[in-house]
Amino acid sequence: MAGGDADGINKFEQRHGKTRVRVGRVWKRSDGTHSFVEWSVSVSLLSDCLPAYFHGDNSDIVATDTMKNTVYVKAKECSEQISMEDFAIVLGKHFTTFYQQVTAAIIKIVEKPWERVVIAGQPHKHGFKLGSEKHTAEVVVKKSGALRVTSGIEGLALLKTTKSGFEGFVRDKYTILPETRERMLATEVTASWMYSFESLSSVPSKPLYFSERYLDVKNVLVDTFFGPPKEGVYSPSVQRTLYEMAEAVLGRFPDVLSIQLKMPNIHFLPVNLSNKENVIVKFEDDVYLPTDEPHGTIEASLSRIRIVAGNVCSGSSLA
Amino acid sequence: MAGGDADGINKFEQRHGKTRVRVGRVWKRSDGTHSFVEWSVSVSLLSDCLPAYFHGDNSDIVATDTMKNTVYVKAKECSEQISMEDFAIVLGKHFTTFYQQVTAAIIKIVEKPWERVVIAGQPHKHGFKLGSEKHTAEVVVKKSGALRVTSGIEGLALLKTTKSGFEGFVRDKYTILPETRERMLATEVTASWMYSFESLSSVPSKPLYFSERYLDVKNVLVDTFFGPPKEGVYSPSVQRTLYEMAEAVLGRFPDVLSIQLKMPNIHFLPVNLSNKENVIVKFEDDVYLPTDEPHGTIEASLSRIRIVAGNVCSGSSLA
Amino acid sequence: MAGGDADGINKFEQRHGKTRVRVGRVWKRSDGTHSFVEWSVSVSLLSDCLPAYFHGDNSDIVATDTMKNTVYVKAKECSEQISMEDFAIVLGKHFTTFYQQVTAAIIKIVEKPWERVVIAGQPHKHGFKLGSEKHTAEVVVKKSGALRVTSGIEGLALLKTTKSGFEGFVRDKYTILPETRERMLATEVTASWMYSFESLSSVPSKPLYFSERYLDVKNVLVDTFFGPPKEGVYSPSVQRTLYEMAEAVLGRFPDVLSIQLKMPNIHFLPVNLSNKENVIVKFEDDVYLPTDEPHGTIEASLSRIRIVAGNVCSGSSLA
Amino acid sequence: MAGGDADGINKFEQRHGKTRVRVGRVWKRSDGTHSFVEWSVSVSLLSDCLPAYFHGDNSDIVATDTMKNTVYVKAKECSEQISMEDFAIVLGKHFTTFYQQVTAAIIKIVEKPWERVVIAGQPHKHGFKLGSEKHTAEVVVKKSGALRVTSGIEGLALLKTTKSGFEGFVRDKYTILPETRERMLATEVTASWMYSFESLSSVPSKPLYFSERYLDVKNVLVDTFFGPPKEGVYSPSVQRTLYEMAEAVLGRFPDVLSIQLKMPNIHFLPVNLSNKENVIVKFEDDVYLPTDEPHGTIEASLSRIRIVAGNVCSGSSLA
Repeated sequence: MAGGDADGINKFEQRHGKTRVRVGRVWKRSDGTHSFVEWSVSVSLLSDCLPAYFHGDNSDIVATDTMKNTVYVKAKECSEQISMEDFAIVLGKHFTTFYQQVTAAIIKIVEKPWERVVIAGQPHKHGFKLGSEKHTAEVVVKKSGALRVTSGIEGLALLKTTKSGFEGFVRDKYTILPETRERMLATEVTASWMYSFESLSSVPSKPLYFSERYLDVKNVLVDTFFGPPKEGVYSPSVQRTLYEMAEAVLGRFPDVLSIQLKMPNIHFLPVNLSNKENVIVKFEDDVYLPTDEPHGTIEASLSRIRIVAGNVCSGSSLA
Repeated sequence: MAGGDADGINKFEQRHGKTRVRVGRVWKRSDGTHSFVEWSVSVSLLSDCLPAYFHGDNSDIVATDTMKNTVYVKAKECSEQISMEDFAIVLGKHFTTFYQQVTAAIIKIVEKPWERVVIAGQPHKHGFKLGSEKHTAEVVVKKSGALRVTSGIEGLALLKTTKSGFEGFVRDKYTILPETRERMLATEVTASWMYSFESLSSVPSKPLYFSERYLDVKNVLVDTFFGPPKEGVYSPSVQRTLYEMAEAVLGRFPDVLSIQLKMPNIHFLPVNLSNKENVIVKFEDDVYLPTDEPHGTIEASLSRIRIVAGNVCSGSSLA
Repeated sequence: MAGGDADGINKFEQRHGKTRVRVGRVWKRSDGTHSFVEWSVSVSLLSDCLPAYFHGDNSDIVATDTMKNTVYVKAKECSEQISMEDFAIVLGKHFTTFYQQVTAAIIKIVEKPWERVVIAGQPHKHGFKLGSEKHTAEVVVKKSGALRVTSGIEGLALLKTTKSGFEGFVRDKYTILPETRERMLATEVTASWMYSFESLSSVPSKPLYFSERYLDVKNVLVDTFFGPPKEGVYSPSVQRTLYEMAEAVLGRFPDVLSIQLKMPNIHFLPVNLSNKENVIVKFEDDVYLPTDEPHGTIEASLSRIRIVAGNVCSGSSLA
Repeated sequence: MAGGDADGINKFEQRHGKTRVRVGRVWKRSDGTHSFVEWSVSVSLLSDCLPAYFHGDNSDIVATDTMKNTVYVKAKECSEQISMEDFAIVLGKHFTTFYQQVTAAIIKIVEKPWERVVIAGQPHKHGFKLGSEKHTAEVVVKKSGALRVTSGIEGLALLKTTKSGFEGFVRDKYTILPETRERMLATEVTASWMYSFESLSSVPSKPLYFSERYLDVKNVLVDTFFGPPKEGVYSPSVQRTLYEMAEAVLGRFPDVLSIQLKMPNIHFLPVNLSNKENVIVKFEDDVYLPTDEPHGTIEASLSRIRIVAGNVCSGSSLA
């Protein structure tokens, strides 16, 4: 992507693409059961098209409208149900092979969480209802066939009403927060995990492999956050809980190379109200003020050692 | 609420209140099971406080900060779990009795859809996860004790991949839409239903009565929209489906006096692409473009006849 | 809109339409100056089409797709620049005359605030930049030719750093808020004002009449809120300031019949921080915590007396 | 930030902080003129606190609540008006010097665009109104005193009704888009530019230096996009226009080391409608359908050559 203008003193990097390409795909089985997905697809191409920037010469530009059309063509060609990761790979492979000037393609997909409804105890053959947290995917395909597949979750909001505390932290002249062993813990998990598959040829051929893995990873994250249904598990900090969740995923899934977790600490403030005359409300782990802002931000990535450069955490270049 | 300024030629109406008062309430049972709700409460008071507007005299103004405090006081006083409708009634009763100048209180609540998580097949004692559609309530209490309780749903997004058509509508020189017996049908239902209880004394004393009724009404709406799990039910229009849903609710729940439904027709457009050379994608009930805008708006209210004035539908005064 | 189903015991009201129909319109003058507007149009029709709801018979249904097409046809037909109120009237007139079964049309438009840019001190002939607050309009046209034109503003956020207080309000056991003569005052004004024109024939024929009036009303609202540039004006409450703004508009514009104002009190909380050891931050009208929630809600409508029923304020039926 | 757990096979990176810390700051001059800013501050610390993750030992953790308090303390200490870049530097310097374990601080600020109102042709002494696009800043301070200052703009929406085309791009079997020399061009610019100051000691001491520079850069971006007020300037592609804007900023401001621009191509689609019988609307550069999705994404960064690693463009590691 490096280039230079006429006088050669500058460095230039660029990409272009199409985002928010929405596609709904229905697959109909012979027994009348329909499957349905709704995806918002983003295509971004790294390509040799500098004359467009330097001279207004568009001859190497793939129009973003063409990228959009391609998404629909490829969705149509998927005659069997396919995971969104595999669909992203199909797109990335196409763009890097069909166009000589395209050196890499970055495909991102967010799935709208349509879930099959259950009516009278039975799954409905063609009825769907919108759920909550979202499955995401990002695939990078290079012309060489090199590949990076990352899956993720957005908007997984979790809350527990006990078994959380925060003690022993730094106290200085700016500190007000009291120590506690009993507080509400709430977060909205954003997770992304990178798979170990490094080339187009190494991707598992099993259909819906990535769709199943997504559900498995989500379950491990949720189970680790909450602990057993009766006892739960004590959280001494969001940091510790985050680390346990990351460790559990790496420990369980050998094909996951690294995982990044963002877990904002969404505060539920104890409600204490008083005026000069009397105490109006006194907190006893019962009445809380939920807040959106400000919130703590705790994020970390855990990787198996064979990853060379820690580029999953956007701040790593600062360390 | 009517008033007049110094020269008596004008009509004046007003209200004031506090909105987005967020409260989280935990109830802990002796066996270690916790219940939790998160509500966003809106208080609006109709009161005799015209001097504040006309002369800057605040002596009859209940500060909105005081309203907010009261929400927390009353949440604290609820030592047992309570439905949001009952909590709204508690608030409305307080404001109309505690303050002489307050003639009516309008309390609206939206519940954040926290759902108890299931871990290893068992409900977790203190763990919750955010779901999708929201339960709403609006309660109007007058000083006389007259009452109106309305419950509702927001954000109930439903979609079916078949058993929907639209035929035989008006065709004129502005019409392009083809007739069809096979299309996607998607909507996001906003429902509100008014109960028949007309005074504070007539409200059922059963705890969580309204919470259960909410789930029952939601189920009837969903079941009617989709039809049986194997066959489904044909929808000749959003209008007809909406009416069937409204009828089913009134038919099933004698304490529901009227129901209003807003069901936008969220369009999934068939994808057909072609250029001069060839057909690129040809639609066969398989690939759709989901859209947010524009969308159809279909709304209606169905009421038992003993309601005198049709004031539930905001447009009724135009008819 | 009243109807009844088979057994005649119910009351039914309905409307349908199309919303978020977006249209951009360019007018080009011979000197190369372009005018441009971007509107989001909502059409809602009250019509005799009950068989669609009761029996799935669509023969009286105007497809919402047809409504959308009509918006573009009428935009095209406007060969000269037109105000959004006049455009709404054109649409309303069309729907109520072209279709026998349509008894009334409600047209709402929100304009995206594109403003002509100034480059090197001169207005640009074809360049526009997005501004902030939005102009809105709602027009109701009945088959009889009866008309109601309402214009409005959304998102007009105003703030002053002094000349605001709140004293002498009710103090009781739920009251904590201190009295003050010095606070920040911030609000986001939503205004709508109804014109006195009651029939299609009484609307002023001057082009852009309503566009100019919109700017004039906005200026009066802003000027009254802030007072003179050097001294400002003291606000003893949001209530009083709101009333002065409403009065100023009615006093200045004889063709405005009534005005409704919603002015949330958006709180900027004084920042005081302390822990056991020392005062960390002490407020001196200098450091504030801006908040979005909760906020006060103050709304009122002021009308000239010749309006019979106070139906502009949605809560009026409760009084 | 690198670490390792018990068995030493993993790589771990982390950061924590507080985001959406909102602060309003008023400065009052002796002549009664007030200045006012509203900032949303985000603090993120890179620090040696791994025991919190590995063992639940919080002794090196700076509580995010303490970070929040510090923002207010430092805002209070700014007795004279200060640019948001300088305020971010103050915060970053504090966190990296006050806490031994903090190796770097990343401070981001977004300013709410309050603008002084003009009443009767004169600037108001204490009145402000919300504008549109937002000024942003990101400052990274390391313990060594190394510094990176980046300023930016969010939400700068620009549109021109002519002098834009797109021709000569790749045509293949997926291409539908026609070539044109006459189209609408609309975008929402997100810009960020890095200054050449590399240490705390090299930052200009002039008060409000960065505030003025922000306005200057914005003007150059806008002027270059639109061209002269009468003639405008022809844009052969978003790519070319983006490059001209980047070049203009680097050419004009020697203290700007690099600039990154994201300029989505927000499409205004020509409206053409027809059915079997007739053409309903035929486009003549007059009626458009504005869309939000999908949209083109064009982004690039231009840097002076003395920057070593091109890490401003998030995709650069792929090239």
